[in-house]
Amino acid sequence: MLTLYDFMGSGNGYKVRLVLAHLGLPYTLVERDILKGETRTPEFLARNPNGRIPTLQLDDGTCLAESDAIIWYLAEGTALAPQSRLARAQTLQWMFFEQYSHEPYIAVARFWKHFFTKLTPQQEMELPGRMEKGYAALGVMEQHLARHPFFVDGRFGLADIALYGYTHVAGEGGFNLDNFPHVNAWLARVADQPGHITIDHKN
Amino acid sequence: MLTLYDFMGSGNGYKVRLVLAHLGLPYTLVERDILKGETRTPEFLARNPNGRIPTLQLDDGTCLAESDAIIWYLAEGTALAPQSRLARAQTLQWMFFEQYSHEPYIAVARFWKHFFTKLTPQQEMELPGRMEKGYAALGVMEQHLARHPFFVDGRFGLADIALYGYTHVAGEGGFNLDNFPHVNAWLARVADQPGHITIDHKN
Repeated sequence: MLTLYDFMGSGNGYKVRLVLAHLGLPYTLVERDILKGETRTPEFLARNPNGRIPTLQLDDGTCLAESDAIIWYLAEGTALAPQSRLARAQTLQWMFFEQYSHEPYIAVARFWKHFFTKLTPQQEMELPGRMEKGYAALGVMEQHLARHPFFVDGRFGLADIALYGYTHVAGEGGFNLDNFPHVNAWLARVADQPGHITIDHKN
Repeated sequence: MLTLYDFMGSGNGYKVRLVLAHLGLPYTLVERDILKGETRTPEFLARNPNGRIPTLQLDDGTCLAESDAIIWYLAEGTALAPQSRLARAQTLQWMFFEQYSHEPYIAVARFWKHFFTKLTPQQEMELPGRMEKGYAALGVMEQHLARHPFFVDGRFGLADIALYGYTHVAGEGGFNLDNFPHVNAWLARVADQPGHITIDHKN
């Protein structure tokens, strides 16, 4: 049985839960509260030396980290996985875009605003720059989605799941999506997929 | 013929140049100076709406962005690519680790110190935190390399190339690698691979 170490509020963790739901894979959910340092304990660091959720433990005890590596592993050979060499590269392009140009701005702004009552002075100073770069990422998505129903090959897949994780809760980070109609229409298409679950849904 | 849009000082671009060299693939190099905004022109944004090098243009005009997606594409079916489902996931795990937990600290500190004569007040304030997180990433690598000669499956591959790009120039960002003997030994093993080129080597 797969064991998923996760924090329910995490969009990165939600990517994995969403793929597991779409694929109908059973798993044991073990919650680790990142707000209480529960991913920095010796027991957890033995599973993932980088100290982050989500971490997936396979049947043989092997642990995988990094949300996008985990969902790539889970989806191999299924309809969620890209089917051609070019589609695999384009899917990875959007997944790396998400982790480098989207998550550090949209997810971090949301983390600060959604999980804490007050920002630190450092966070206050960094927030405008993070918001600006988050909107830039949304702009790149909007431009692509104006011409495509999904991110790769015109069909729902891993790139959509990777980008949906934090885009659909961007409002909790103070982002206003009113000027991104194609992003909104895509969010609705993703939520409309058979097998969809919400971020707070437990297996 | 492949066309690579790149900036020679970039460790992300170097990953692609290194893979192209290992695979013996011919390509046209088109340099774009990121210090002069040459990746934010309308002509460049038509190739990569996210405005970043490296960007690889394929024979049919399709453009791929994100260094790790590009090297995944180039290496498919070659000895540099991971050979099993688990090795593919572990390779991606280290590539996402690099882009999320390593590059934003080590590459950014190096970018500020190596390419500019003076840091801005904002950069001065952020630098200690970036150095701390960069050293944490080096610690995760050191721990893994104490038990493994390369990052995945005991053999040289994409994960090594992805992590070598900026680790081998971490000193230019002010990082002292003296306390990371296994990282140093691994850097030497990577540089010792047949077909290796240095970051300033042009095709």
